[in-house]
Amino acid sequence: MSDHDVPGGGPSVAEPLVAAEPARRCSAAEEARTLLAGTGQGALASLSDDGSPWSSFVAYGTLADGSPVLCVSRLAEHGRNLQADPRASLLVVAPADGPDPLAAGRVTLAGAVRPGGADARAAYVAGVPSGDVYVDFGDFDLWVLVVERVRWVGGYGRMASASAEDYAAAGPDPVASSAAGAVAHLNDDHADALRDMARALAGHPDATAATCTGADRYGLDLTIATPRGVATGRVGFAEPCGAAGDLRGATVELARRARA
Amino acid sequence: MSDHDVPGGGPSVAEPLVAAEPARRCSAAEEARTLLAGTGQGALASLSDDGSPWSSFVAYGTLADGSPVLCVSRLAEHGRNLQADPRASLLVVAPADGPDPLAAGRVTLAGAVRPGGADARAAYVAGVPSGDVYVDFGDFDLWVLVVERVRWVGGYGRMASASAEDYAAAGPDPVASSAAGAVAHLNDDHADALRDMARALAGHPDATAATCTGADRYGLDLTIATPRGVATGRVGFAEPCGAAGDLRGATVELARRARA
Repeated sequence: MSDHDVPGGGPSVAEPLVAAEPARRCSAAEEARTLLAGTGQGALASLSDDGSPWSSFVAYGTLADGSPVLCVSRLAEHGRNLQADPRASLLVVAPADGPDPLAAGRVTLAGAVRPGGADARAAYVAGVPSGDVYVDFGDFDLWVLVVERVRWVGGYGRMASASAEDYAAAGPDPVASSAAGAVAHLNDDHADALRDMARALAGHPDATAATCTGADRYGLDLTIATPRGVATGRVGFAEPCGAAGDLRGATVELARRARA
Repeated sequence: MSDHDVPGGGPSVAEPLVAAEPARRCSAAEEARTLLAGTGQGALASLSDDGSPWSSFVAYGTLADGSPVLCVSRLAEHGRNLQADPRASLLVVAPADGPDPLAAGRVTLAGAVRPGGADARAAYVAGVPSGDVYVDFGDFDLWVLVVERVRWVGGYGRMASASAEDYAAAGPDPVASSAAGAVAHLNDDHADALRDMARALAGHPDATAATCTGADRYGLDLTIATPRGVATGRVGFAEPCGAAGDLRGATVELARRARA
C-alpha cells in the first residue's frame, strides 16, 4: 500500500537497550482541544449554493465543550452558505514553528452549525479581538459548530481521529502556553538532567546527551544521542500537570527520579 | 442594510484640503497573486462522500498562471475527496501581523482540480519544503486547481472579486518581500520626506507628520497627522516597480517630487 520507507531515506535510529517505563501521551481529543485553545482563527469549509465547497477565513470563540463559535456576515459568501446549509468544517492549524508547513499540528472539526445564544455570544467576544465591535451588527449571525467528527494530524506520521464525545470531554493542555519556554530552559540550563532522564528512564543507559523537543501535561519528549546512533524517547511525569505552574515541579521530580 | 456606522465608534478623519493625484492600487487579482506567492500553505475545502464540506491543511506550489498545485495522499480524507469530486476551494491567508486576525489579507480560490503533469510536479517541488520527499509516493496525487472564482479580502472593509482571466494574467507584487523593511526604514530615517509627501502629494498641506503604513509596486500608504485630525493617504510612484530593487529608486523619486 505504501512506499514511504525510502531505502537510505533516513538516519539510523537507536533502539532502547532496556525497557523504558511507558509514558502517557496526549490523546487525539486532547491535542485537538489544545489546538483550538491555542489560536482564535481557522479556515471554514461551507457549501456554496451549487453544492461546491467554499474555504474562508474565520475567527472563533470556543464553548466549554470545545464547540467553536463563529460570527459571520450574511454579506459574505460563507454567511449566506451557512444560512442555506448548516454543514460545515473548521480547520485550525498550530502557529508556524519551522520551515516545513506540513510538520505543523492541525485539526479538522466537521459537523453542522446551529444558531448561537447568549453563551455563544460571550464565548465569541471573549475569544476574538474586536469581536465585540461587530457581534451585534444586524447582518452578522452567531453560529455554534456542533462537532460530529474530529481528525487530528500532529505532523508527519502522527494522526488519529477522535469521537465527538471524547472531544467534548477533553480539555486543552494547561501547560501549552508555557511549554516552549520550559523546553528552552531545560536545554539551556539542565542538559545534564535531560541526559540522566534518557539514561535512567528512557531506556538508553549509554546516552551521551539529550535534548528536550517538547513538553506537555504528561511528560517530556527527548532526542537522545548514543554511541549507537540517535534515538527519540519520552519520559512521563509522576502526575499529569493540572495547571501551567505544575510543569516546573513535575520536571524537577523527573530529574530527581532519574538520579535516584 | 448595514448598521456598521456605530455612532461615536471611530476617530474623526481629516479630509484632504486640496485634490491629490489619484494613486493606483493593486487590483484584487494582483493582491490574490501576491498572497499566493507569499506563503506555501493554505486550507483546502473539498467534498466528503456525503457531500458535506471538509476543511484540511495543504501545502501548495504555483504554476505560472497562478494555479495552485496540490499533492495529497489518498490515505487522507481530502485525497479521497478530490478523487471522487474535483470541486475544491483553497484559502490562503497572509502571515499574522498583529493581534486582530480579521485584519489579515486573505483570498479564496474556487474551481475544480485536474490531474497535474510534469509542470505541476516541478512547481510543487519548487514551492514546498520536503515536497520532493513524497511527491512520487504511490499514494500521492498531484492536482492542479483550475481557478474559476477569486474572492479577495484585504482586511476590514477592503474586498473584491476578480475574474479567473484577470487572476491568471496578474503577477505577484515584486516588492512584497522587501516592503516591510522599506516601510520601517522610511519611518525610522525619512520622517521628513514622508511628511513632505503628505503635504505636496496627498492633499494635506498642513500635515505635521506622516507615517508609512504600507508599500507596494504602485506607491506608499500613509497615515497623516494634521491639526484637523488624522488622515490616511496614498502617494503613487511615477512608474510601477517591476522588481524588488526598484522600490528604493521609486521612493526617492517620490521624495524629490514632493520637494520640487
